[in-house]
Amino acid sequence: KMTSRKVVELFYDVVSPYSWLGFEIMCRYRNVWNIDLKLRPAFLGGIMQGAGNKPPAVVPNKFKYMNKDLSRLREYFAIPLHPPSDPFEAMFQKGSLSAMRFLVAVQERDKGGDKQVEQVSRELWRRIWSEDKDITQPASLSEAAMEVGLSDSDIKELLELSNTHEIKDKLKKTTQEALDYGAFGLPMMVCHVNGKKEMFFGSDRFELMAHCIGEKWLGPEPEKSTAKL
Amino acid sequence: KMTSRKVVELFYDVVSPYSWLGFEIMCRYRNVWNIDLKLRPAFLGGIMQGAGNKPPAVVPNKFKYMNKDLSRLREYFAIPLHPPSDPFEAMFQKGSLSAMRFLVAVQERDKGGDKQVEQVSRELWRRIWSEDKDITQPASLSEAAMEVGLSDSDIKELLELSNTHEIKDKLKKTTQEALDYGAFGLPMMVCHVNGKKEMFFGSDRFELMAHCIGEKWLGPEPEKSTAKL
Repeated sequence: KMTSRKVVELFYDVVSPYSWLGFEIMCRYRNVWNIDLKLRPAFLGGIMQGAGNKPPAVVPNKFKYMNKDLSRLREYFAIPLHPPSDPFEAMFQKGSLSAMRFLVAVQERDKGGDKQVEQVSRELWRRIWSEDKDITQPASLSEAAMEVGLSDSDIKELLELSNTHEIKDKLKKTTQEALDYGAFGLPMMVCHVNGKKEMFFGSDRFELMAHCIGEKWLGPEPEKSTAKL
Repeated sequence: KMTSRKVVELFYDVVSPYSWLGFEIMCRYRNVWNIDLKLRPAFLGGIMQGAGNKPPAVVPNKFKYMNKDLSRLREYFAIPLHPPSDPFEAMFQKGSLSAMRFLVAVQERDKGGDKQVEQVSRELWRRIWSEDKDITQPASLSEAAMEVGLSDSDIKELLELSNTHEIKDKLKKTTQEALDYGAFGLPMMVCHVNGKKEMFFGSDRFELMAHCIGEKWLGPEPEKSTAKL
């Protein structure tokens, strides 16, 4: 069965709340669908600039709706998403460049098949999109990494690695790859199906994506649904 | 049971392909969910301007994705949606002002509880978003109305009525009402639930909307799904 698993790449940035939803849903479905999920930390700022796109928050009615939408999705998806007190500062002034470089470094060193990059990503989202905490300073990145059990010496090495050309270039390369797939925001999923690459944007096409890879959408908490069957 | 039916208002414009999807899905679910669907023809151009929003098509990657997304949705939703040969001309140069005024006139005269406005709306979508035909000229509007069985004399009256201040103002008023609900595009649904008004934008929140009104999302073809039960 391993050989027939469909590869799904998930491009995400921890500054993006819809990326968090996409990430958790894909992590839940990884155990339900016959897929091989590849985590692809990317840089949303670079994607918006590269695609010539503007954040939805610049239109006041869109910003208001997004807040309402996120609070509905928090409940329905069961993800503890709470906007930071100053979303503009958190998203556009402070941003996520150091956090995403740190995640690329974690993934580079990760021997356990993306387990650590998954855990640290979740921890960073929890900081910015649940606890209204910083994700830009080295101390913040250290705290997130400690939270999931990385050692002081590993963290020191990861922080240094984050600032190398190697890691900076790797994040640029992944971001460019997302743009080449047609990204104009995040999250973005690329499903490899019968030699074709099918791109899905956002956190509202799971049902369609399931259909595309020959699987079934079972709602936001698939393990509860399958337990009922 | 009539008294407990929840009112769902659907604001739409026939120039918008996602409005067509929203319209057909809501028409299908009207027979499945315990709702009272109110059709609210509005003017997308006025909403974009009023909200300070720009069409997604101005970002090249968004435009490409929208085309892909619509072709997937055509198949999955079973709606014969085909982009016109020149979507920019059809959507932004020719637009839908005369078509939406005509629909408001049809609704004004409709004695059959929105049956005619439903049929003429569908016919106009079919023209622009399936058959690459005009929807701006009086002859085009007449053809659409004839197609669903309106008489020559009714059509003549409706075309005259379309150009009255009464009808122009009515379309403006509905468009403003949509903006006041927080619209920044179409389709938009407003669910009246326990004295509260819950606004949903676009054609990708049906599952969440179902949850909000205490109903179940059964996929894009609910009557097939319920027939199987």
